[in-house]
Amino acid sequence: MTMKLFELAGAEPERRFSPYCWPIRMALAHKGLDVEIIPWRFIDKAAIAPSGQTKVPVLVHGDKWLFESWDIANYLEQNFPDRPTLFGGAQGIALSKFYCNLASVIASQAIRLVLVDIYDHLTETDKPYFRESREQRFGMTLEQVVAERDSNLQTFRDGLLSLRMTLKTQPFFGGDQPLYADYAVFGVFQWARCISPFQLLAEDDPVAHWRTRLLKAFNGLAESAPGYD
Amino acid sequence: MTMKLFELAGAEPERRFSPYCWPIRMALAHKGLDVEIIPWRFIDKAAIAPSGQTKVPVLVHGDKWLFESWDIANYLEQNFPDRPTLFGGAQGIALSKFYCNLASVIASQAIRLVLVDIYDHLTETDKPYFRESREQRFGMTLEQVVAERDSNLQTFRDGLLSLRMTLKTQPFFGGDQPLYADYAVFGVFQWARCISPFQLLAEDDPVAHWRTRLLKAFNGLAESAPGYD
Repeated sequence: MTMKLFELAGAEPERRFSPYCWPIRMALAHKGLDVEIIPWRFIDKAAIAPSGQTKVPVLVHGDKWLFESWDIANYLEQNFPDRPTLFGGAQGIALSKFYCNLASVIASQAIRLVLVDIYDHLTETDKPYFRESREQRFGMTLEQVVAERDSNLQTFRDGLLSLRMTLKTQPFFGGDQPLYADYAVFGVFQWARCISPFQLLAEDDPVAHWRTRLLKAFNGLAESAPGYD
Repeated sequence: MTMKLFELAGAEPERRFSPYCWPIRMALAHKGLDVEIIPWRFIDKAAIAPSGQTKVPVLVHGDKWLFESWDIANYLEQNFPDRPTLFGGAQGIALSKFYCNLASVIASQAIRLVLVDIYDHLTETDKPYFRESREQRFGMTLEQVVAERDSNLQTFRDGLLSLRMTLKTQPFFGGDQPLYADYAVFGVFQWARCISPFQLLAEDDPVAHWRTRLLKAFNGLAESAPGYD
C-alpha cells in the first residue's frame, strides 16, 4: 500500500518549495518508503479536506490522513520501527522537537530574503492569495520586504551561529548520519533553493557544506529537484 | 573515591557563577554522584595546571584531570552507564551538542545584560583581569556595555523564541525529564541569577517556568545557591 504525500508545488508542477514538506520527503527516503507525490497548490483546499485542515504536508496512509510535519515524522517512526530510526529513541524524539521550532524561526527570517521569488513561481490563481496574505503579515508590499534583503542577509547568517559551531565538529546534527532534526532544518534551505537564486549561505560556511551533504543524500533526491544551484 | 570539581567562585566563596560549571553540577546530581566542590578564581591558574589548560570546570576523578563541560559530561555518561542517562544514547549525544553551542551563544548575548554585576561580585584580585579582558572584548567599558541593557533586553528575549516554542509543548528539552541539553542551557540562566538581580525573563515566559523547574530539581540544588531571586 503506497502512501500519498500532498506537497506544495509552483506553476511548474515539479517545483516543490515548502519548508515543511521537504523534511517529510527526506524522512520517507530515510525510512526507505515508497510514496506517491501529489502536487498541491494553495487554493486546492478541497483535495486535502479529509485531513480536517488546510495546509500541507498531508500524508495519506490507507484510511489515515495525517498532517503537520512533526506528527507525520512521529507516525513514520512508530509505524516503521524496523526501518532506520529518525530520532534515536524517546530522548531523541524530545531533543528533536526544538530543531523543528528552530526551523520555523529560521524560515520566518529567510522568507524576507526570497519573498518575491516565491511569488514569481506561483500559479496565477495562487498569486493573489499569496500577495494579500503575506503583505498583510509583513505590513508592506512583497517588493518592499525584499528590497531590504542585502541588509538583512548578515543578520540572517549571524543567527545561524550555533548551527555553524555544531557543524564544525560533526557532519550532521544527528551525528555521523542525518536524523529528522537535520531534515527539519534542511527543509528551510531546500525551500529557498527551489524558488530563489539568492545565496543564503556563504560558500565556506559549514552550514553550506552540511546542506550539500543533504542535497546529495538518497541519490541526490533534493539536489535533483528543480532549483537554483 | 569522591570526585573533585573546580568551580568558578566570586569574592564570597559560595557564590558560583560560571555558565559552564553549573551544567556539570547538575549532571553530577543527575547521575547521583558525590563531588567535592573547590571554589576557584580566575587568577588560580596553578591550582588547575595539571589539567593542561586554564579554565574551569575542571573535574578530577582519581588520576584523571578533565576539562570542558561537554567532554566532562560525556566522560560521566561513559563511566557511569548504569546511572540515569544524560543523553539517551548515541543519537541523543549528537543531538545534544547543538544545545551546548546554543548555550554559548545565549551566554554571549546575556553577558551584555549583567556584565557590571559580575564585576561587582569578583574578588579584588580578579577584578583587574576581568575588566581589562572584557573591555578589550567589547571595545567599551563595562559600564557602557550595561548602559544599553534595557534596549538589548527585548532582542535577547526575542532570540529565545525557538526555546520558548518548545517549552510550551514539553516540560524539558529532554522530554518529561531533563537531560544534559537542559542543563547546558540552564547554566546560562543560573549563572546570571547568581550574580545579577536583572530580570532576563518575563515572569509568564515558558522559559522562565522551565528555569524554575530546574532550580527546584535535585532538592533545590540550584535554587539554594546564593543568587538573586
